[in-house]
Amino acid sequence: MAGFHVRSVLVTGSNRGIGLELIKRFIGKPNPPEVIFATCRDPEGVRAQELKNLASKHPNVVILQLVSGMEPTRAYKQSRILSPETTDSASIKAAAIKAEAHLGGTGLNLLINNAGVMPPSTLESATPEDMLSVYNTNVVGPLLVTQAFLPLLKKAAQGSNQKGMSCSKAAIVNISTVLGSIEKTPETFSFMPVVSYRCSKAALNMLTKCQSMGYKQDGILCSALHPGWVKTELGSAQADLTVDESVSGLIKVICELSEKHHGVLMSWEGNTLPW
Amino acid sequence: MAGFHVRSVLVTGSNRGIGLELIKRFIGKPNPPEVIFATCRDPEGVRAQELKNLASKHPNVVILQLVSGMEPTRAYKQSRILSPETTDSASIKAAAIKAEAHLGGTGLNLLINNAGVMPPSTLESATPEDMLSVYNTNVVGPLLVTQAFLPLLKKAAQGSNQKGMSCSKAAIVNISTVLGSIEKTPETFSFMPVVSYRCSKAALNMLTKCQSMGYKQDGILCSALHPGWVKTELGSAQADLTVDESVSGLIKVICELSEKHHGVLMSWEGNTLPW
Repeated sequence: MAGFHVRSVLVTGSNRGIGLELIKRFIGKPNPPEVIFATCRDPEGVRAQELKNLASKHPNVVILQLVSGMEPTRAYKQSRILSPETTDSASIKAAAIKAEAHLGGTGLNLLINNAGVMPPSTLESATPEDMLSVYNTNVVGPLLVTQAFLPLLKKAAQGSNQKGMSCSKAAIVNISTVLGSIEKTPETFSFMPVVSYRCSKAALNMLTKCQSMGYKQDGILCSALHPGWVKTELGSAQADLTVDESVSGLIKVICELSEKHHGVLMSWEGNTLPW
Repeated sequence: MAGFHVRSVLVTGSNRGIGLELIKRFIGKPNPPEVIFATCRDPEGVRAQELKNLASKHPNVVILQLVSGMEPTRAYKQSRILSPETTDSASIKAAAIKAEAHLGGTGLNLLINNAGVMPPSTLESATPEDMLSVYNTNVVGPLLVTQAFLPLLKKAAQGSNQKGMSCSKAAIVNISTVLGSIEKTPETFSFMPVVSYRCSKAALNMLTKCQSMGYKQDGILCSALHPGWVKTELGSAQADLTVDESVSGLIKVICELSEKHHGVLMSWEGNTLPW
């Protein structure tokens, strides 16, 4: 076990659900990160109030605005035009510049691409708007965020004297799902088709594998994690795990990540899942 | 082996490459289909001339216009706005209505979603426009085409007295690729990153699995096929297979498809590939 010695971490979609709980857990560590970047779409909105309260009490929490995907409801309303700028490249680049200034010459150890959407979608009901907007948030978002923060991740890896790979050195964790496992689809399809979500998460798993190939030489660990079916706004109240249970597992898995998890999809319980 | 007794087939992207060769092979069968629908974006364009020549000699070849995705170059030019209507739902529905009229009360046995694009794309160079336009053509296209032709596929399955599943009864074949196999990515990533293409094809593999779950009760076989790396406009002249070799293999595999290939990714040589 590598232990937890993360100087800096960034979590996208951190104003609610799993993202918010991850921020709380990082704050509560015996050796918390010096900088915890918490990103969300609208830091001034009512839905970011709990995150703002946290940041006001903990000076190591830095809120950054980052539009890594559009609200699905807004995507549906824009039924004829989906602009790629709704994954706002400019906001992502601006967030990376602010983060760099905060870090004062050090790199970013851990990037957690957590932001995601899961609107209802079946083989019959899936539309181009649905498919493209979900892909935009769940795949294009993590791609762009990683592109923007890659220099800071490289800097952390280069500045580390640790051997091997770990989240204490430099790591990208993409929050995926077992619903993106093609192999395991027959186990859940009948009661949870979510076709646009499944397709996007299979693609995110592929992106994770590509990142693990591309960033291996930089010493940056890349893994995809399945958080379980969690009682959140995304997972609904019918889910079988509390946010607390899921994030306890995720934090344990993240702390223990090493080379053998590079380019792998893992569950919150630490089990490897098939593609 | 189920043999080949396909009364009707539809191939998308059939004005060039693998699609065009599939049309030629169906024409050349000892027992050719009564109706061969060949779809392409622009039947009146110069790039459809060879297909038009074929259709003029073979009355069982029916050309249908079907915009299942935009030209990638056009997508890049439209750098700020990607409209979902570039996968033209209306043209797909119109094609299905024309096909139904041609079939005169019978169903469609075999749908081959072959149209696809593979622009260059690396982890560094991938843009939202690239990611979304490739996903639009390679995933949203097959989804919409299948939605539109599903009633005709169901009709073929219902009208068949064959037991089990086969392309002679009712089948959806999605032309995928080993480059969409997450498991096998390490074998090819260094010399062929094509990130936007890989992500889209992993998603297409997931779509195929979802379709295999959703359409099983209708008796419609759903498989994904890897055609090999083929000397076409998409595959480039450096590829290691001729169109002839690839399509010979594909036709053999398609003719032999049965229940055990339902929801599976197969190579042109008949081998099952991992996700």
